[in-house]
Amino acid sequence: MAVVLDGRETSAKVAEELKAQVEELKRKGVTPTLALILVGTDQYSARYVNMKAKRAEEIGVATQVHQLEQTNTEEVVKLIRKLNADPKVHGFMVQLPVPKELNELAIVEAIAPGKDVDGIGPTTFGKILMGEECHHPAGIVAIMELLRRYNIDPEGKHWVIAGYTNIIGKPMAALLMNMKVSVSLCRADDPKLPEIVRQGDVIVTELYRKHAINADMVKRGVVVIDNGNNYEGKKVFGDVDTEGVSQVASAITPVPGGVGPLLITMLLRNTVKAASH
Amino acid sequence: MAVVLDGRETSAKVAEELKAQVEELKRKGVTPTLALILVGTDQYSARYVNMKAKRAEEIGVATQVHQLEQTNTEEVVKLIRKLNADPKVHGFMVQLPVPKELNELAIVEAIAPGKDVDGIGPTTFGKILMGEECHHPAGIVAIMELLRRYNIDPEGKHWVIAGYTNIIGKPMAALLMNMKVSVSLCRADDPKLPEIVRQGDVIVTELYRKHAINADMVKRGVVVIDNGNNYEGKKVFGDVDTEGVSQVASAITPVPGGVGPLLITMLLRNTVKAASH
Repeated sequence: MAVVLDGRETSAKVAEELKAQVEELKRKGVTPTLALILVGTDQYSARYVNMKAKRAEEIGVATQVHQLEQTNTEEVVKLIRKLNADPKVHGFMVQLPVPKELNELAIVEAIAPGKDVDGIGPTTFGKILMGEECHHPAGIVAIMELLRRYNIDPEGKHWVIAGYTNIIGKPMAALLMNMKVSVSLCRADDPKLPEIVRQGDVIVTELYRKHAINADMVKRGVVVIDNGNNYEGKKVFGDVDTEGVSQVASAITPVPGGVGPLLITMLLRNTVKAASH
Repeated sequence: MAVVLDGRETSAKVAEELKAQVEELKRKGVTPTLALILVGTDQYSARYVNMKAKRAEEIGVATQVHQLEQTNTEEVVKLIRKLNADPKVHGFMVQLPVPKELNELAIVEAIAPGKDVDGIGPTTFGKILMGEECHHPAGIVAIMELLRRYNIDPEGKHWVIAGYTNIIGKPMAALLMNMKVSVSLCRADDPKLPEIVRQGDVIVTELYRKHAINADMVKRGVVVIDNGNNYEGKKVFGDVDTEGVSQVASAITPVPGGVGPLLITMLLRNTVKAASH
């Protein structure tokens, strides 16, 4: 039976460590501060920003919420330049996606890489690909942290990225290109997906398709990181048939309760790191 | 027998097209202008910059050579900022590598993405990964151009990147992540290299190891792009045993005479493109 890579438990542990680090920073007169930019009026984005602010507070990270309801690209970029220059703000993020009429690339490109604690800007992406130091997107830090906590060595493995977007798969692949691993990538609609997935010692899915991967498709002993978030009513399913695959995998993330609960914590960890420099 | 993907012939054709485009631009009052920054006193770098200036002249692209013999990071960055702001300069490049005592990342990061015609900055790398428009490094434009001229459809294929650095393999993989392909990557020292190389419908090598890939290691009908440059005295060898692999491949780049002769031409094409905007 596969070890369950428990994101909730790991997140709680990291949060405890962060609290201690924040206290230490505050003793030195530094209050780690995260600015959250919310563009438009999307309810889901607003809820998510509030969750982030609440979690930040629990850890002791100060937050500023900047909501721009009716706005344009220039205004958002102007706010970003202000935050780039503000020494009290250690990091900030723009809740994506922004409304369609705005130029999202111009917005994320304006974020100073040193403050891009959500790892969403093109310069950050490029630095990851080049193997240079920078903030990594929460999703990929979460994956690496889960492996570390469960003593799974990421190196010397054949990693398979099944499905990939800017959120997880692409920056994950870029990071892996700077480690001692083999990497294969297949798109969600790739006819070679089964053949490629079977080669994986570690499989990272970002397919957004319920139970697209089952026990017959994977190698015995595989480590499975499931980033699926497939809702059926209020129930959420992963990309992987967790129950079946658990019989052959050595480790697997549950959905829910895998990578998800770590995302906000990792954003906060990036912020605390930025404040420490 | 494999079709030979002739870089010299392709380069000459592209150069002819560029000449016509440059004339057209000049008629409109625009002279495409490329600035070449040479840092330090390395003889090889100086020769390469001179070759670029000479080829630019042949095509009608104006050049400026900025040589900074004794310098530091701040001075180079200052020059870059001046060129970023100079409307007469459509693109510029820094001949890499710069001397070790300089901060190469800070230098390439200072280049405005719109003028990064050599595709070496982190923002450019990030945009390629994100699938956003930008100048692509000469090596990968050269590869895509060779395929196009020889009517080889890059899509629907399993691409293998055997060996990868910032010059070819990493930006190539980033580009492929935005196309309808499967991609596998293995490092030069990857024990799985033979197993992975055998899967490739298209193989791009950047191994820097003479004849590391032979006919027994590849699939029949494979397309092989050899970026090796392995010198033995004055003779240069590719990463691929060209003669042997030609018996089973459908198309192959010779070494020398494959991707190499296209590199400067593609830098100039990026410059002309920048001048057209």
